[in-house]
Amino acid sequence: MNEENKKTAPTVFEIEEGNQLLPRFDLYEYLPCITLDAETGEVLMLGYMNREALEKTIQSGLATYYSRSRKKIWVKGEESGFFQHVQDIFIDDDQDTLLLKVRVDGGASCHVGYRSCFYRRLKKGSSKELEFTETHKVFDPKVVYKHG
Amino acid sequence: MNEENKKTAPTVFEIEEGNQLLPRFDLYEYLPCITLDAETGEVLMLGYMNREALEKTIQSGLATYYSRSRKKIWVKGEESGFFQHVQDIFIDDDQDTLLLKVRVDGGASCHVGYRSCFYRRLKKGSSKELEFTETHKVFDPKVVYKHG
Repeated sequence: MNEENKKTAPTVFEIEEGNQLLPRFDLYEYLPCITLDAETGEVLMLGYMNREALEKTIQSGLATYYSRSRKKIWVKGEESGFFQHVQDIFIDDDQDTLLLKVRVDGGASCHVGYRSCFYRRLKKGSSKELEFTETHKVFDPKVVYKHG
Repeated sequence: MNEENKKTAPTVFEIEEGNQLLPRFDLYEYLPCITLDAETGEVLMLGYMNREALEKTIQSGLATYYSRSRKKIWVKGEESGFFQHVQDIFIDDDQDTLLLKVRVDGGASCHVGYRSCFYRRLKKGSSKELEFTETHKVFDPKVVYKHG
């Protein structure tokens, strides 16, 4: 029996109070990842990482996600040029969610052209109507994404 | 044919650029929800909401999640007393992720006792070792969660 086979599942204490990264990927083998602008603290987006994307993120220092729709590893910015340079990688209590603090080239993260993907909020008193909290786009997606 | 049957799927433009809340729940019928402290902007946790939890959150003003492990609707704070009072509800570009800004009773959100669930980060230069960024617990879980 080799070392690998002797491993036992980590305890709740090891996961929640320990100092080892023990990411708990979901049934589809990915983890959600909240990404913040390191300078402003603003939430930019929620992405997903599988083990390979997380390893590439740690190794390269560039935020690398797994695209669930395109079913492939994806270096954020590889098309737009707006790379995310990782400053810090946090993990939550039960190690099933990541949080990245990044410096963003170009100052925008959202493919629609806004700084953050969270550019709309529910209007006070309404259960349906949204209002825009970003008033103009940072870039024109038609120009940045040539295929668009 | 009634009005309900005449509905067509919303377009990408309506989802991304529109002013109507059109939440796109996943295969399991829930959405991830990033929750921030409205005062400090700090990310407190990632939870999940199904349609009922989202409706209850909007109606009551208290953050209400769906617990995937306990398979039930869960008003955050119902056991600890640390309720989350919703100030704003944001939704992202493709309307599959929520972001709440909340005022937190008791000043802590994490069941382990920390202010935020993201109290550990990867040490610089390491791919495995975590360091704690919160130095002490805000509450003792054994006292707050009587069953603990």
